[in-house]
Amino acid sequence: MIIDRLYAAVEERGPICVGLDPSPGLIPSGLLQRAHSPAEAYLRFNRGIVDATLDLVACYKVQIAHYEALGVEGLACYRDTIRYIRSQGVLVIGDVKRGDIGSTAERYAEAHFGGDFEVDFITLNPYFGTDGIAPFFPHIEGREKGLFVLIRTSNPSAPELQDFPHPPFTPRHALPVTRHPLYLHVAELVARWGERYVGRCGYSAIGGVVGGTAPEALARVRERFPKLFLLVPGYGAQGARGKDVAPAFRDGNGAVIAASRFVIGAHRGKPDPERRFPEYAREAVEEMREDILGCIRS
Amino acid sequence: MIIDRLYAAVEERGPICVGLDPSPGLIPSGLLQRAHSPAEAYLRFNRGIVDATLDLVACYKVQIAHYEALGVEGLACYRDTIRYIRSQGVLVIGDVKRGDIGSTAERYAEAHFGGDFEVDFITLNPYFGTDGIAPFFPHIEGREKGLFVLIRTSNPSAPELQDFPHPPFTPRHALPVTRHPLYLHVAELVARWGERYVGRCGYSAIGGVVGGTAPEALARVRERFPKLFLLVPGYGAQGARGKDVAPAFRDGNGAVIAASRFVIGAHRGKPDPERRFPEYAREAVEEMREDILGCIRS
Repeated sequence: MIIDRLYAAVEERGPICVGLDPSPGLIPSGLLQRAHSPAEAYLRFNRGIVDATLDLVACYKVQIAHYEALGVEGLACYRDTIRYIRSQGVLVIGDVKRGDIGSTAERYAEAHFGGDFEVDFITLNPYFGTDGIAPFFPHIEGREKGLFVLIRTSNPSAPELQDFPHPPFTPRHALPVTRHPLYLHVAELVARWGERYVGRCGYSAIGGVVGGTAPEALARVRERFPKLFLLVPGYGAQGARGKDVAPAFRDGNGAVIAASRFVIGAHRGKPDPERRFPEYAREAVEEMREDILGCIRS
Repeated sequence: MIIDRLYAAVEERGPICVGLDPSPGLIPSGLLQRAHSPAEAYLRFNRGIVDATLDLVACYKVQIAHYEALGVEGLACYRDTIRYIRSQGVLVIGDVKRGDIGSTAERYAEAHFGGDFEVDFITLNPYFGTDGIAPFFPHIEGREKGLFVLIRTSNPSAPELQDFPHPPFTPRHALPVTRHPLYLHVAELVARWGERYVGRCGYSAIGGVVGGTAPEALARVRERFPKLFLLVPGYGAQGARGKDVAPAFRDGNGAVIAASRFVIGAHRGKPDPERRFPEYAREAVEEMREDILGCIRS
């Protein structure tokens, strides 16, 4: 099971997941000017970040939206970025958050677990229920792949759907409604989907996404679903710190913490960013790693 | 507002939306064999379908997953397909079902409302709440674009999340829980997002997706949210017929009914599919159009 490789990577190198989410405003302007296209600049930037950080991270997460924004050429850069990381023997999470009916989900499985865009894990949206997830199951065993399904996201408006039907959505007198907000119901579904795919490490190859900006949700999910490996976004730019993400862990493993802007934007406002951005990214990873390990291995 | 153009198209040509979702098993095998690549065969096939049906349809829906499955070359074919349709003056819905946090949703807005993949409408997933939708708002007025947000999908497991917390999710004694299943709460959010973007036709440029396989949900959403234009998938291969989708309409407008396999797979089992697939697709559209118009204009 692929999850055993991720577990081992966290044991060896710690739980940091660097998000490679470049944008024209984030990468050093000199890099952009010197390249023939933004996509070319992104690839050069990504390779610089990867080369400078791969011994300190568990995996990379590549957010496809940033490449899709550049059209066909951007998606060629997405392909080349994930290929480069995988050629270094490091795991990649394709942060695609796809979700659709069964016959369409099969096409997304083909897209992201083989061919140009092949990665080790992808993120999925649970809104369609089992139909939208099951087409990925044959790839988990057959092709050593894994999933992270959205449970509770890191953005401010996450409660609008994910805490439904808790207040403020129902009049107070109608309570108690249910003991569960939607996200816990989703976590239950994800845990059920993952039961058949538990690796030697004790975690399932079907994990969940829970934002570091919601430490209480993180603690509830971790406590109730011990086999769920967690992908935790929201560190840094979105506000989460080591103490917020600490509830995601069990004995120092069982989660990876993702940060993008905090790492790949660390060069901003510093001297000679165009040449030194890899060094600044490495320092940010070291700082983040120390912060988190200090909170979970104390 | 773009929704006025869609409304006018339904008035003039009826409410059919053809889904261009090719796959190697669906298109005539001769077409596939004769092309240099599946993507080239898809484009030839799509142009044949469009040329044969555009005077009978309100719009086309292009499901990006089928193209993403072919990697970078497939996405070039997605680009060329939507460009071809738009060059004929016909509206295109990019069925991308994206959904992410705000800063990432901005990238998806760039991706699908400009550049290579520019379409008129896109479908979105509501799981992130307002943050995942608001970045598309500036494009609605500024660039004449529209959205269809998932409310109740057409697949069998849709109730697992979308009917939450209704039975069977909560013990019977805990009821009444809330008057709303999740999908109606989502419909309320969608209607609220759309209030500022109501066109002259009385419908908002932010519409909703409700499957034709759930006629009761369709009727509830139609009744409660009169300004919501509906995109209704599920006709044909997924089981919905004219009588099932009829509740989506108000005075013969306010909805488009999408079918893919029913139309683009109509050549299967018929003579000379490679040459005659456009003719069979046209017949299927005529049959579907007659069925639906018979149910809503009676």
